[in-house]
Amino acid sequence: MAVVTPDEFRQHGHALIDWIADYTEGVEQYPVASQVQPGDIRAMLPEHPPAHAEPFADVLADLDRVVMPGITHWQHPSFFAYFPGNGSYPAILGDLAASGLGVQGMSWVTSPACTEMETLMVDWMQELLGLPDHFRSTSATGGGVIQGSASEATLASILAARWRATGGSINAMGDTTHLVAYATSQAHSSIEKGLRIAGIGTSQVRIVPHDESFAMRVDELDCLVRDDLAAGLTPFWVCASRGTTSSMAFDPTPAIAAVARREHMWLHVDAAMSGIGALAPELRWINDGLELADSYCTNPHKWMGVNFDCDLFYTADRGSLLGALSILPEYLRSAAAEAGAVIDYRDWQVPLGRRFRSLKLWFAIRSGGVEQAVEMIRRHVTLTQELAEWAAADPRFEVVAPHPLNLLCVRLRDGDAATDALIERANATGRALFTRTVLDGMVACRISVGGRTTDRRHVAAAWALLQELAG
Amino acid sequence: MAVVTPDEFRQHGHALIDWIADYTEGVEQYPVASQVQPGDIRAMLPEHPPAHAEPFADVLADLDRVVMPGITHWQHPSFFAYFPGNGSYPAILGDLAASGLGVQGMSWVTSPACTEMETLMVDWMQELLGLPDHFRSTSATGGGVIQGSASEATLASILAARWRATGGSINAMGDTTHLVAYATSQAHSSIEKGLRIAGIGTSQVRIVPHDESFAMRVDELDCLVRDDLAAGLTPFWVCASRGTTSSMAFDPTPAIAAVARREHMWLHVDAAMSGIGALAPELRWINDGLELADSYCTNPHKWMGVNFDCDLFYTADRGSLLGALSILPEYLRSAAAEAGAVIDYRDWQVPLGRRFRSLKLWFAIRSGGVEQAVEMIRRHVTLTQELAEWAAADPRFEVVAPHPLNLLCVRLRDGDAATDALIERANATGRALFTRTVLDGMVACRISVGGRTTDRRHVAAAWALLQELAG
Repeated sequence: MAVVTPDEFRQHGHALIDWIADYTEGVEQYPVASQVQPGDIRAMLPEHPPAHAEPFADVLADLDRVVMPGITHWQHPSFFAYFPGNGSYPAILGDLAASGLGVQGMSWVTSPACTEMETLMVDWMQELLGLPDHFRSTSATGGGVIQGSASEATLASILAARWRATGGSINAMGDTTHLVAYATSQAHSSIEKGLRIAGIGTSQVRIVPHDESFAMRVDELDCLVRDDLAAGLTPFWVCASRGTTSSMAFDPTPAIAAVARREHMWLHVDAAMSGIGALAPELRWINDGLELADSYCTNPHKWMGVNFDCDLFYTADRGSLLGALSILPEYLRSAAAEAGAVIDYRDWQVPLGRRFRSLKLWFAIRSGGVEQAVEMIRRHVTLTQELAEWAAADPRFEVVAPHPLNLLCVRLRDGDAATDALIERANATGRALFTRTVLDGMVACRISVGGRTTDRRHVAAAWALLQELAG
Repeated sequence: MAVVTPDEFRQHGHALIDWIADYTEGVEQYPVASQVQPGDIRAMLPEHPPAHAEPFADVLADLDRVVMPGITHWQHPSFFAYFPGNGSYPAILGDLAASGLGVQGMSWVTSPACTEMETLMVDWMQELLGLPDHFRSTSATGGGVIQGSASEATLASILAARWRATGGSINAMGDTTHLVAYATSQAHSSIEKGLRIAGIGTSQVRIVPHDESFAMRVDELDCLVRDDLAAGLTPFWVCASRGTTSSMAFDPTPAIAAVARREHMWLHVDAAMSGIGALAPELRWINDGLELADSYCTNPHKWMGVNFDCDLFYTADRGSLLGALSILPEYLRSAAAEAGAVIDYRDWQVPLGRRFRSLKLWFAIRSGGVEQAVEMIRRHVTLTQELAEWAAADPRFEVVAPHPLNLLCVRLRDGDAATDALIERANATGRALFTRTVLDGMVACRISVGGRTTDRRHVAAAWALLQELAG
């Protein structure tokens, strides 16, 4: 049995660190999107597990031989698809330290440093982002936690709202049939998914119409809420998206909050993709109205160079969150928790187990990650505005949505089929990667400027590629 | 701005690898449980984020100065608390590779290797564990996926069952009030939590009585189901625990399955803590009846040396799982998925985003992780049986539950207070760590033998400690 010894771990670990540096610095050599066909990767691997241990060097070699052809390079500077997912060297090391320590952070007592570091990091981020004080862990009723993803944060928010709206009876009775939620068609898919999981079916979800900027029309929200109240239903949760996935639209939080407050609805603000922009003081308008929100989430794993998974979830009403998610079996009791002196984050999330995720945030922030992120965010925003000018100057293209930050949606005036064909041809070159969306029934090409090393030459090349293929 | 350069990353990365090897090899020097008081760790750190970048060496130094005093060492060979959470060198490197690649595996197209490697790894594990073929991804209706935790797997199972029991109408109507679920009081807290999240309140959850071995009484299950049917309710989900958390009891899956089949209930088998034992052929009885289960989960991150997070979730009915969790917005469509040629794992789980988790499983299996795990599992089981003999030979103690694998529950004949005091005194020494539980109203000390390097001398020392302090 060839077990990896400590010396082998050092040797292979050093080699893997070097491999990551080589990969990161050389990522431009690869086509952005993997060029494989379905089944190609599996076909390169044995169908059955090996009967005996193999030398670890063979495993590392297979990273290049088998894995790399099947990678779509999210760290490539010409990756303009989906959303930013940039990592950074310090965050990678923070993740490594977490793996090495191998502790569970489900309760304070299962590793106090895991909990206390996390609490401090969400508080540091509250300051750095300029978020309202009612989200700080030292506030009377609020606090923050690191979740794995915005999907999980959204679900947690829905569950807290459901608990509050039913006065806690949901935990015993499970009756969700009178509850109604509100969001626009532009809200992220995790909103519908989270509501569905919580027993709020589509018949209880109101799609609030949006304006020409794809932002929620609050007059329409108000009408829907009044209709539901008149029908004897309970409006309980509304989502304000600050930066929608399709086009980066911004719902007007303060006006939505006014309706939410009036009807005692829970207001969740979803800024998963764009909220980190508030690290730059001139972009702090993203936070407008947050002082009226019950919960909020944004993702350092999208736009701050902190590797997935790292979503910040804040609530102003931790009592409802704990009411919704606390379960205390005997084998998880502890004196510190009984005394109320500590936080047990297992009660702030769906899973019980949790990694030491705050280490990567701590490593990133301390080694200059905030300054680096602000520089990157400003660069992305500037480049996107420049790109928008180029697009406006080309009569074949039209810009189809506002673009206040780092996402530009364009389409060919020739129509949907032409736009679809353009995206497909451009992606097939491997020189850049874009995602398609549909905005008010019209196909558009999303250009998300979000790579850690994405610079003017990458954006210019991407635009040249689209122009070249536009015919 | 001091950004970490590639060369600095190599330098600090090598140092961190060495730090992990030193930590892992030297972990016995630490008290098992952190000795800090609430607030101690936070007090060692600045309350506000640094205004400027600090040298990375300072960050690494603070791992020792600030973080280590707050660590409860799950990798310590004298860690007998909670459940095994052992890691290994190859798995740490697999996790590191995932961090370095920084890809999202939400869809096949977002990085084909991430999806195809995962599918192959869950199939490899199906073989290695001797699980039924209806869980294999190449089967007609089943398949597997890596989830972050058993809590998430349980929730996914409940959601799939809810979808099937309502003929899919749950997605629109959200009415869960007629659904009833079944488990014993010994089932894991994530069962109640998952049901609650899904809108199945405690009034719709039947606690099935258990026998003296803490296993489900199927005659009682049968009665409860018949009563609920007579009351016009819909029994929809039953959990068979194969290795409960409190005492490692084993519910009789085949008999439970007979009731589940008769009433078209979804049978979920939860073997989070113990299922990996089936890597050893002589322990394959753990899987008894699985061929009749609709879903199953077990955790390589508990007993196989694969670092958290890595839960294997299998279902025989992927159609219901996809029915429950699929949402397809325009920006996530892909030609490969539309053609049905690929798996998009985002539809197999709650979150959208996902790490390249299969790498750590691949690294571990290829470098001898299975042989190592089998050796470890056998060692733990042998040591636990030996420990049970020692306990039986000491008239002050009694063994309070069956102990077929690697968990022994003991108590002092002097009663609850004495047992509680013993656990508290033993844990305070830092020489070992145990967890308390309550079994049929009686306090017990759980001794979970689960460390990668836990050997006879650690178990003997732990027992000597308990004997010494038993007075």
